[in-house]
Amino acid sequence: MFKQRKIKNSKNHSEFLKTLLHSLPKEEVIYEPEELSVYECDGLTAFRVLPLAVVIPQKIEEILVILSACKRFGVPIVVRGGGTGLSGGATPVEGGIVLSLSKFNQILEIDPINQVARVEPGVTNMQVSQSAAPYGLYFAPDPSSQIACTIGGNIAENAGGIHCLKYGLTVNNVLAIKMLTVEGEIVSIGNVGGESPGCDLLSLIVGSEGMLGIVIEATLRLLPKPECAKLVVGCFDDVTEASKTVSQIIASGIVPAGLEIMDKLVIEAVQSYIQVGFPTSAAAVLLCELDGMFEEVEEECRLVEQIMIQMGAKEIIRSKNEEERLLLWKARKSAFPAAGRISPDYYCMDGTIPRKSLAFVLKRIAELAAQYNLRVGNVFHAGDGNIHPLILYDNSIVGEMERVESLGEKILELCVEVGGSITGEHGVGLEKLGPMCLQFSLEEIQQFHRIKRALDPDALLNPGKAIPTLHRCAEFGKMHVHQGQIAFAGIERF
Amino acid sequence: MFKQRKIKNSKNHSEFLKTLLHSLPKEEVIYEPEELSVYECDGLTAFRVLPLAVVIPQKIEEILVILSACKRFGVPIVVRGGGTGLSGGATPVEGGIVLSLSKFNQILEIDPINQVARVEPGVTNMQVSQSAAPYGLYFAPDPSSQIACTIGGNIAENAGGIHCLKYGLTVNNVLAIKMLTVEGEIVSIGNVGGESPGCDLLSLIVGSEGMLGIVIEATLRLLPKPECAKLVVGCFDDVTEASKTVSQIIASGIVPAGLEIMDKLVIEAVQSYIQVGFPTSAAAVLLCELDGMFEEVEEECRLVEQIMIQMGAKEIIRSKNEEERLLLWKARKSAFPAAGRISPDYYCMDGTIPRKSLAFVLKRIAELAAQYNLRVGNVFHAGDGNIHPLILYDNSIVGEMERVESLGEKILELCVEVGGSITGEHGVGLEKLGPMCLQFSLEEIQQFHRIKRALDPDALLNPGKAIPTLHRCAEFGKMHVHQGQIAFAGIERF
Repeated sequence: MFKQRKIKNSKNHSEFLKTLLHSLPKEEVIYEPEELSVYECDGLTAFRVLPLAVVIPQKIEEILVILSACKRFGVPIVVRGGGTGLSGGATPVEGGIVLSLSKFNQILEIDPINQVARVEPGVTNMQVSQSAAPYGLYFAPDPSSQIACTIGGNIAENAGGIHCLKYGLTVNNVLAIKMLTVEGEIVSIGNVGGESPGCDLLSLIVGSEGMLGIVIEATLRLLPKPECAKLVVGCFDDVTEASKTVSQIIASGIVPAGLEIMDKLVIEAVQSYIQVGFPTSAAAVLLCELDGMFEEVEEECRLVEQIMIQMGAKEIIRSKNEEERLLLWKARKSAFPAAGRISPDYYCMDGTIPRKSLAFVLKRIAELAAQYNLRVGNVFHAGDGNIHPLILYDNSIVGEMERVESLGEKILELCVEVGGSITGEHGVGLEKLGPMCLQFSLEEIQQFHRIKRALDPDALLNPGKAIPTLHRCAEFGKMHVHQGQIAFAGIERF
Repeated sequence: MFKQRKIKNSKNHSEFLKTLLHSLPKEEVIYEPEELSVYECDGLTAFRVLPLAVVIPQKIEEILVILSACKRFGVPIVVRGGGTGLSGGATPVEGGIVLSLSKFNQILEIDPINQVARVEPGVTNMQVSQSAAPYGLYFAPDPSSQIACTIGGNIAENAGGIHCLKYGLTVNNVLAIKMLTVEGEIVSIGNVGGESPGCDLLSLIVGSEGMLGIVIEATLRLLPKPECAKLVVGCFDDVTEASKTVSQIIASGIVPAGLEIMDKLVIEAVQSYIQVGFPTSAAAVLLCELDGMFEEVEEECRLVEQIMIQMGAKEIIRSKNEEERLLLWKARKSAFPAAGRISPDYYCMDGTIPRKSLAFVLKRIAELAAQYNLRVGNVFHAGDGNIHPLILYDNSIVGEMERVESLGEKILELCVEVGGSITGEHGVGLEKLGPMCLQFSLEEIQQFHRIKRALDPDALLNPGKAIPTLHRCAEFGKMHVHQGQIAFAGIERF
């Protein structure tokens, strides 16, 4: 699947391990196979690689020692946070080590006046908001794994969540980081004041999937908790109507805190799991959360309901209190476990499309699903066009997995065709190396390699992830879908 | 001031010019000294360099021809938009050409459903909003040069404006670009859907001051015009009170569309220029613009006024209608010409600081101004801590310019000391090469050089701008102010 590292022989391996054991406390180095197996995959469980060793340092100085040993022996490094990633960003690399930052788990400062938190990378996403809560503040990105996923991982994958329509992805909520380069330099990037001169290294590092440096500290933007939040749910007979309503709401100038669609298959799965009172006849529900000051939210709810009715909503549910609002969101957040109850296996996809293409893309997905004879549910961040088709299947049926993969590829191709992208918030990791060749031309992939080489010339940091080799893309096929056009790319292109 | 390029001899110059004249229409190449002089500086008029030639191509293919000739002869290229930049980003480089993109001035598409505009780089900032106006949309970044500055220049310098507190800088409002690499590859970066996989090249290019590639097309985010906007002006006896009010307003959860402070010196200058009714006794005015839906704006105005009064405002002015609102803004925007009337010369500085340091920094600036016996006015984007101290002076007095420069350096040092940065929205260009050494360690500067070399290995694109040489920083002085700490950096650091 990915570029294998050459580590000359097992003698080198044992020399390397000796060096680590010599320079680090014994309990910080794991190398027994049975203990290593815990680290053989992240949330992308289909890919498993046993690392050479796992190191769990407690101090920056120890990371420097590890970097130096890795450099000397040419051993690749995969940094790991909570291990909840869905695209294989933290899957070990053959012959490489896993560097766990779980001991870097301190909240260093909550500054309520500047509304920032300074934290170590091993702190969980949820801990940040919990620590900020006494000041009426919170950290906006809220991936569904927020109890377990770490800030380091959020930064590596540029994590999103339900509320990123209004409050942005991780990249919009990180003000500064401290990072170790592969050379062992400590560099500070970004600025609490917001703007930092020079190239925007901060945005470059956020989302770079551990390929460009090791983040050892982050300064996060905290937001004041809104005075009030209400959820308006529109129930539609037709998913197309719900999709079109999304554009209408945005066009009205309202920026909802969340704007999510669930289709019939998902509604039914959820209803049989938690009873929240969505009408069983609904083909789609549109969940629209509005937050801010009381008057503002009241007025926006009224407007959103009006738009929903104009666009064909048959029924509207508005949360009467906080309890009701949380129950409705619980229904949304239960979509994946609910899907697990109606199908032996499911594959959660991730792509983005321009909002105006929502209706078209959902229709095409339904057609493709019929062609492949697979059930596909849809539950997604409609407001920012981040779709999550959920392909239901049974892994015990021979050949079914291959059909799922093939359908998945078609769906991503469709995203690219309409001008969208092959991942919204889950990252590329190992999973999407192939689709990267759909998204980008060789010239574009080349730019990524140039940046990677500039900051990690020996390819020690998470090698083989996120950026496909040019060779891989050349192999990927002669039909090259790029920026909304399908072009036949002759051999000269490669 | 900056690294001079070696172009072997004038024979090479003339060969290069011949190549250009041979491959481009005659009217697209300017090389007569008297015609070239128009291009010898941008808004940073203190730096002037006569370029070897100016080329004004009309087609992408012509740019490719120019790039190829420059590569062959080792001639550096400075891309120029409106030439309104204040930090010398478009100042020519000795022995180099200026590549004007003024003929790339088409609005290619306004897409009201996806709320985006696709434009060529030579389109002015104002034209975008004008073209979007019939759809009730506008482009948020609004630098004060917006009538003349171009989208290409806005991207190069990551331009801001009064409204970037709420709506972000250029980087937050550009969704995608098409760019020529120095190798002549055409690459598409970013995505209309928002999220794009791989490293965030888009944020890297925005603000990179023409050093990494040539932007030939941009897809911009358009926003719906708010239903209503009101301006609340609080008049304070003390600039410290006004500064503290800024943090209080933000802490309340309100995000004003603009939040600006003008101090006594500026108020007096403005009042003698346009009569808008600020009380002459006021030591500072705080202008707070609120936009959104009627009810929301009404409620927010009430809250902001309440906070202002609690914090000591002696008088409050609220715009009664659109005419009054625009008149009040006119007063703010007239600050620079007004300063021009009370002083023969002025130097407009640009830095950012964390909001909580506003009161401290303004006090220190006043103390420094007294020490240097120079008048300093303050008129700035208080909400995002982007200060613009205005040093008044008289260039005809021998030695005064040197004192101004020295005071300016002290002010930037102060910004870095409190954890801020040496530029907010004007960029580094040639002007801030020295201060970059205050802001960043050598290890950090080294990362910028790595990125620059990765995308422009022969240093042909705007060489010597934005990133100081390591040598320059070593020369800059032994006292190294970095990230809020003053540390004595011994020679071993360099």
